[in-house]
Amino acid sequence: MIKILFSASQKDWEKYKTELIRAMNDTKLVYEITTDLNCLDANYIIYAPSGGLADFSKFRSLKAILSLWAGVENITGNTTIKVPLCRMVDTGLTQGMVEWVTGHVLRHHLDLDMHIKVQDGVWRNNTYPPLASDRNITILGLGELGLSCAKALSNLNFKVSGWSRGQKSNIENIKCYFGNEGLSEALKRAEILILLLPLTKETTGLMDERMLSKVPHGSIILNPGRGHLINDSALLNAIESGQVRHATLDVFEIEPLPKDHPYWVSDNVTVTPHIASVTRASSSCDVIAKNILRGESGESFLHLVDRKNGY
Amino acid sequence: MIKILFSASQKDWEKYKTELIRAMNDTKLVYEITTDLNCLDANYIIYAPSGGLADFSKFRSLKAILSLWAGVENITGNTTIKVPLCRMVDTGLTQGMVEWVTGHVLRHHLDLDMHIKVQDGVWRNNTYPPLASDRNITILGLGELGLSCAKALSNLNFKVSGWSRGQKSNIENIKCYFGNEGLSEALKRAEILILLLPLTKETTGLMDERMLSKVPHGSIILNPGRGHLINDSALLNAIESGQVRHATLDVFEIEPLPKDHPYWVSDNVTVTPHIASVTRASSSCDVIAKNILRGESGESFLHLVDRKNGY
Repeated sequence: MIKILFSASQKDWEKYKTELIRAMNDTKLVYEITTDLNCLDANYIIYAPSGGLADFSKFRSLKAILSLWAGVENITGNTTIKVPLCRMVDTGLTQGMVEWVTGHVLRHHLDLDMHIKVQDGVWRNNTYPPLASDRNITILGLGELGLSCAKALSNLNFKVSGWSRGQKSNIENIKCYFGNEGLSEALKRAEILILLLPLTKETTGLMDERMLSKVPHGSIILNPGRGHLINDSALLNAIESGQVRHATLDVFEIEPLPKDHPYWVSDNVTVTPHIASVTRASSSCDVIAKNILRGESGESFLHLVDRKNGY
Repeated sequence: MIKILFSASQKDWEKYKTELIRAMNDTKLVYEITTDLNCLDANYIIYAPSGGLADFSKFRSLKAILSLWAGVENITGNTTIKVPLCRMVDTGLTQGMVEWVTGHVLRHHLDLDMHIKVQDGVWRNNTYPPLASDRNITILGLGELGLSCAKALSNLNFKVSGWSRGQKSNIENIKCYFGNEGLSEALKRAEILILLLPLTKETTGLMDERMLSKVPHGSIILNPGRGHLINDSALLNAIESGQVRHATLDVFEIEPLPKDHPYWVSDNVTVTPHIASVTRASSSCDVIAKNILRGESGESFLHLVDRKNGY
């Protein structure tokens, strides 16, 4: 009998319960699932920070922790973890991110806001945007999400650059940069900048005054990654000066974004409520069940977190 | 000496002149270009309706008419034409159309308007759109433009159906319909409907009350094709009743769209000023020069119009 502890919020349990049972039944394994944190002989913990679990040392039969979230910065530093930790890599989550990023890139590329906001009877057909093939886009972060977005944008003929901390192998049609020097080069090209970095000690507050000064004047910033990647006051100053023309932000240092935050009132900031990439119950439970099946078969886990690097 | 008559507006001449000379020089042909309509020994006429030319019978040395526009409905019925007529098929024009269509599809798919218009400090993260893989899109017209848009949307995982008058060979990942019966089927699936049909006798006013009743309730309509494809009052009624949730229109029966047209004031209509697909001087002059070179070499012309079908 495999024991599975679901440790997330009550709301999460209601969202995932049915699909989790369905996905586990599909594996033909014999199992039971509980939300009781006193189930100390759990073999697998399905984890989200909202469950409040912090001390994993008391689970003596634990084989793996399976995160419901893609971002694992809340747990990587937890020294009580002695078993493999797996991130959520949900195809629905990746696909949703690609759609949000591509939609907002095209929105800014085509200046859709002008047409959506201004319908005043004036026929302004003298100006039109450049083609995507003349538009430079830079993506910081070339993990699962960043890479998928880079490929989708490149398929639409955008000129895409990508940056990652460590060197990656060549990626077709993506100009890849890495390291500190590469970051400056990548930012220089960013008519539209997309932040999809993991949150680590190095990336916290990365987009500060100095980094924001490197993008071309009038650049657009999209942040569907992590709120703490941006220094909020530096960004607001850059918007004030026109260095950044518009920021569309889906993630924030504090969520929900407080009602009195200056982001809500700036004409050049669009707030979306952490919806760029939503974990969908059906596809994510398949991922979890598949990993439990692998664990029971003695196969290596998918989507293992490298806890030293923090992602 | 090849004689080329450029018959379009003075504004067009200023837009194309430099690139046309550059592209013709690239061919190494010996030629001269004029805008003088009395040049009755012209071998090629570069044509747009704005030039006012209507009687082609007086040009006795004419080898071909090369349209600056993709749409040729203004000239296909002209019985004075006895030489090949070629449409503009400009890669920039196709690419621009793909970007406009993909941008507006994602805008409606993700309901970007809500986030662009309403920034009221309320964090509404309970609802999010379905994935593209659960969204049905129908494109009417599978010519160069329709097909390119279909492929781009299918690359983003949308469920794409296409319709054309005559049967087409199978197209990967696109569910293809044809004929009258197929039209009803294609419309039934259109959560988002895109009109990219050529304007012919059969397609004029095609989207009337009867056809608009076939789409799913609350459907979105994009028309970057031709204004006359839609019966305006039928569309306004369908919007009034909620049958059509929103229409984003780039082309109109009369352009510029009159200042007092109801489209301008409807909350559920977005007018864009015929910018979805803009002929760009550089790439389109390359197409024209290439066709003249082919004509002089005795090769068949590219992008020949089938005047019997009207496109």
